[in-house]
Amino acid sequence: MSLENFFDPQSIAVVGASTRKGKVGHEIVTGMIKAGYRGKIFPVNPKADTIAGLKCYADLQSIEEIPELVIIVVPARIVPMIMQQCTEIGAKSVIIITAGFKEVGEEGRKLEQQIIQIARRGSIRVLGPNCLGVIVPGKRLNASFGGDLPATGTIGYISQSGALLAAILDMADANGIGFSKLVSIGNKADIDELDMINALGADPDTKVIAGYLENISDGNAFVNEADKISHDKPIILIKSGGTSAGAKAASSHTGSLAGGETAYECVFERAGVIRCNSIKQQLDYAQTFANQPLPAGSAVAVVTNAGGPGIMAADAIEQQGLTFAVLNNETVQRLAGGLPTAANVYNPVDVLGDALADRYEFSINVVVDDPNVDTVLVLLTPQAMTEPVSTAEAIVKVARRKTIKPILACFLGAAKVTEGIEVLRQGKIPQYNSPESAVAAIKVMAEYVRWCSRPKRVVKLFPVNRRKVESVIEKHLRQATREIDETESKEILEAYGFVTPKGSIATSAEQAVNIAEQLGYPVVLKVWSPEISHKSDVGGVRVGLNNASAVMDAFDLMMYRIGKKVPEANILGVLVQQMCTGGKEVILGMNRDRRLGPLMMFGMGGTMVEVLKDVSFHLAPLTADEAKQMLVSTRTYKMLEGVRGEEGVDIDAIAEGLQRLSQLVTEFPQIQELDINPYVVGPQGTTPVAVDARMSVEKI
Amino acid sequence: MSLENFFDPQSIAVVGASTRKGKVGHEIVTGMIKAGYRGKIFPVNPKADTIAGLKCYADLQSIEEIPELVIIVVPARIVPMIMQQCTEIGAKSVIIITAGFKEVGEEGRKLEQQIIQIARRGSIRVLGPNCLGVIVPGKRLNASFGGDLPATGTIGYISQSGALLAAILDMADANGIGFSKLVSIGNKADIDELDMINALGADPDTKVIAGYLENISDGNAFVNEADKISHDKPIILIKSGGTSAGAKAASSHTGSLAGGETAYECVFERAGVIRCNSIKQQLDYAQTFANQPLPAGSAVAVVTNAGGPGIMAADAIEQQGLTFAVLNNETVQRLAGGLPTAANVYNPVDVLGDALADRYEFSINVVVDDPNVDTVLVLLTPQAMTEPVSTAEAIVKVARRKTIKPILACFLGAAKVTEGIEVLRQGKIPQYNSPESAVAAIKVMAEYVRWCSRPKRVVKLFPVNRRKVESVIEKHLRQATREIDETESKEILEAYGFVTPKGSIATSAEQAVNIAEQLGYPVVLKVWSPEISHKSDVGGVRVGLNNASAVMDAFDLMMYRIGKKVPEANILGVLVQQMCTGGKEVILGMNRDRRLGPLMMFGMGGTMVEVLKDVSFHLAPLTADEAKQMLVSTRTYKMLEGVRGEEGVDIDAIAEGLQRLSQLVTEFPQIQELDINPYVVGPQGTTPVAVDARMSVEKI
Repeated sequence: MSLENFFDPQSIAVVGASTRKGKVGHEIVTGMIKAGYRGKIFPVNPKADTIAGLKCYADLQSIEEIPELVIIVVPARIVPMIMQQCTEIGAKSVIIITAGFKEVGEEGRKLEQQIIQIARRGSIRVLGPNCLGVIVPGKRLNASFGGDLPATGTIGYISQSGALLAAILDMADANGIGFSKLVSIGNKADIDELDMINALGADPDTKVIAGYLENISDGNAFVNEADKISHDKPIILIKSGGTSAGAKAASSHTGSLAGGETAYECVFERAGVIRCNSIKQQLDYAQTFANQPLPAGSAVAVVTNAGGPGIMAADAIEQQGLTFAVLNNETVQRLAGGLPTAANVYNPVDVLGDALADRYEFSINVVVDDPNVDTVLVLLTPQAMTEPVSTAEAIVKVARRKTIKPILACFLGAAKVTEGIEVLRQGKIPQYNSPESAVAAIKVMAEYVRWCSRPKRVVKLFPVNRRKVESVIEKHLRQATREIDETESKEILEAYGFVTPKGSIATSAEQAVNIAEQLGYPVVLKVWSPEISHKSDVGGVRVGLNNASAVMDAFDLMMYRIGKKVPEANILGVLVQQMCTGGKEVILGMNRDRRLGPLMMFGMGGTMVEVLKDVSFHLAPLTADEAKQMLVSTRTYKMLEGVRGEEGVDIDAIAEGLQRLSQLVTEFPQIQELDINPYVVGPQGTTPVAVDARMSVEKI
Repeated sequence: MSLENFFDPQSIAVVGASTRKGKVGHEIVTGMIKAGYRGKIFPVNPKADTIAGLKCYADLQSIEEIPELVIIVVPARIVPMIMQQCTEIGAKSVIIITAGFKEVGEEGRKLEQQIIQIARRGSIRVLGPNCLGVIVPGKRLNASFGGDLPATGTIGYISQSGALLAAILDMADANGIGFSKLVSIGNKADIDELDMINALGADPDTKVIAGYLENISDGNAFVNEADKISHDKPIILIKSGGTSAGAKAASSHTGSLAGGETAYECVFERAGVIRCNSIKQQLDYAQTFANQPLPAGSAVAVVTNAGGPGIMAADAIEQQGLTFAVLNNETVQRLAGGLPTAANVYNPVDVLGDALADRYEFSINVVVDDPNVDTVLVLLTPQAMTEPVSTAEAIVKVARRKTIKPILACFLGAAKVTEGIEVLRQGKIPQYNSPESAVAAIKVMAEYVRWCSRPKRVVKLFPVNRRKVESVIEKHLRQATREIDETESKEILEAYGFVTPKGSIATSAEQAVNIAEQLGYPVVLKVWSPEISHKSDVGGVRVGLNNASAVMDAFDLMMYRIGKKVPEANILGVLVQQMCTGGKEVILGMNRDRRLGPLMMFGMGGTMVEVLKDVSFHLAPLTADEAKQMLVSTRTYKMLEGVRGEEGVDIDAIAEGLQRLSQLVTEFPQIQELDINPYVVGPQGTTPVAVDARMSVEKI
């Protein structure tokens, strides 16, 4: 169902409207009138005749028509009754401002569930409860108690914290930032962040989607839908509660458990979401995307009237991994022809402390024409001769002529540059309060462009034996055994095209030797017992056995010692296995986040990497590119390529392993955890071997 | 000589004073009058009778007394003449505002040298050239063209960029930040950053020293003096030009080459300097130190009226490595007794959206008393009921009562909180525009406290054989051979207590075998030739030779192959050396930065670490603690302690090696570079061995 009624209703009922100033039920009605709302307003309150000059209704049933939007501000315990009335009159869109639900504990949670049940029965969409409401400046709609109507703009904002929205409105007002829509989603009992992101994605008045979230309701759906929207409109989010302290605070705040930070990072990366740490940064980024074209590349040129800030910008450009543009000869010549001798005609172009607006205009015009330049950053420091207002006008003028390259400004200072900054804002030139924050915004634009232009995601499907895996998993679910042991885990892996070391079970030392002779030395012995899952811990693994007597000794010692150590274990035998020699050890794995989805893991093996915790993560399903990227993004990736003349390993073979695993966990959502450790890989052209593996399943 | 005349002169001559409005020579005189300067002002200009109502003098000689401070604003080429006149009248303190010196190229550099020579002859201290001047609000002294006098405060500011100072003044004005002194040091021809840091260190009106620098003139002096001052007053610096793009920009800006970024980091760390990336951050930190007591520890409690910002603060506290305070039972009880049921009485304390000032006051009072809390951060979001002004007053009131713990505030928003923020400022409560920046300031305070309380630095001096080293170095300097080969490098190391593998030179295969038999197998063979410095590259190193025939083969092959490969090399023989087996390989080294001093280096050996570039640096001379810290700060330090049950190595022995090396390079500044690679270390109690070494020397 469309959420149109929340953004452009023709009539609104306010249940709990009040005659008393200061009460939310009063502020909402007067706020709506003050904002100049053009539809009908129906205050509902059995104890009043009129509210703020409007006719007041005793109940929803008394209203002559069905209000397109119902706002509820009555106390929590009465909300279910009002929701029931909404069902009866056929209202379809409801905002519940009232707090006191899930966020206050068990009783509130029950009340919230009750509301949702009523809503479902009546096909009602609900925003909230525990929210601030909705603001649509362009429609002069202020269905909230967030204060005055902000300026109209192209930024759509979603917030899981109502109070924060109040602060954002105040900040945006001071900085002349306008919005298409502002939505407080509160407890997300029905409408959640993704519904709103979808609605803003489809909204022609919204160019940029921004938001503050404390959690995401469904990672899989989020990735799929936000990914598509990201290609058209940047999605810029603050997600708080990432640390354990923050998560604890968030939990007591919204009553919902935050997912793992790593999983969130993976979800945002996959969905192309731009993540921010602060509101200031978010508004910086949002105004940049809202007002400027996207850059074609990462080369930045700086025009400044002061050396110090120019150097600081240059530092920031390099630190952010952008390119410090090298101006071409023609540009340098033209600049040299028009600027005083003492000026610097290379990047950063220094127009000198006594520069008036004309010198800025000339230089920006020349620099923006340079094909080596993708973005121009103009810095201004208020010195004795400086003309902040005329310079701002000059920048706006150039930007209007050259509309294909972003031009950004950083006027340093305060009172002396206030008017100039106002001119910039009117002219849609984003202004930042430091060179670093301007450069950070450029970086984010360049990254977004790169993200949008990446090749279409194609997830390769390998021919596999699904039936085999189904039968193993079904058996385990039937027997309610969560853990799948090494042998069966390897059967599952083999069904998905993995190679595992050859081997069989021996029940006597002699049989172990026979098997070893067939396999060829060296071999590995591993105890086989349903009661023993961590074999190494009890001395149940012996490697590098080179001859018959070593195998016999190992077998007997294992039987004797484990029998004494774990008397309760039922030892079924010993697995005699080929030993993989040479090659490098890596780890492939998966951990399913209940809320956010299957998180693929790649890690380097060996002691050193254990120290470094050198692992990378990505949401399944993986493309070939993403699988490769998981390898590249580890810090010790070069070890795989080979260093000091050492031969590298087959990188693509590892990436393929990750893709096969990704297919397995995508096709079998019952698999909760999975590890191949070690996965032994050799040089180009060789087949890696899954030497050890374990997984766990769960009914879903 | 004291710089007192720059800060509190009784009389000032302005050479180049002008009658024309807008000219620097006019603005300086009128600016001084406008600021209310109480001493005498002598404008000097042969073409005017009066300037701004003051009697004008034809030249310095005509003034009836010796001005305590002379400000020069005449064109660059005339400056030497004026400096000459200063010498003649006996003026001792001069500010040269005029630009056009070192920063514009060779000719300007010569002019600047000329000025300095005159100054030295006349014992004149010079500030500038190419600077903005000096401002001392408390003395109503505005000897600059930086605009209006800022507020008086306790922050002393030094800037190598005049234009930046202009922006800082404007920003500080808008944020109510006051200064004790502001100094533009320009080209630093005479007075440099360290002179000024020393002057501000001794200045009773300055509590915090802040500055913007593009380079440091003398790293050694800086470390020694700034270190002492840091203990009394925090030094908060921006140092730009750290990247190659920035350094290039800085070079064209100030005409001086920036030193290596690593060296700067070491200098700042040793001197206890707090480094910032932006002016905003710097002013945040400066106002924090200027207005609040230092915290006793790192535990932070948050009081907020909105969940979202509380979570963001909690995230920031954990991310910054601070402690998210756990409120004790008594605190929780007291809070629960005074706050509404829905409030959160644990950290972050949520006083709820409808909190008035009294609820804040109650909560802050309770929280600040908790012994588990070192710093209190108060967050406010402007909601319908919120009282920003009264809340600010309440915070100030509590802070006045509890003066031993820092209390900071973050009022989010803009217009709605402006008045409240003004109350905070008047009450000396630092205000930040985001929870993250508030927490960053707390982190910096906690770090500073930790730095100040670290044990006194004691550099251990080992008994060594200096004469031996002197003779080797002198020989090389006499022969003008910069590189010292392995054998002599090891002699130097042995003289400083290092153990090197035993071995001697063999000139025949038979002799090599004899030596090997005496040393015991395995041995290493290394070619010995003054022409071959990178022995491995030409096949001049063979390791792991286990018996006589292996030694003979290796000797003969080396002679034959190297003879063919490097026919011009004079092969004097082959070094037969004990081979160190077992143990771990690390690298000890030193690189001398011409400007900043000897940079000690520690690195882990082996392939993996080569990939990671896992090295750490510290300025010599090292204390035992600093040497140890160099090890700990590598990412793979745990490898040295031993992982997976593996025995660790003798950490203290490595640290001692670094200290001995540090003593060597401190006592012999001729040593420019030095490497022990590998330095092989074994378990606790064993002696590490310097297996290979090289160094280079230079006349100083």
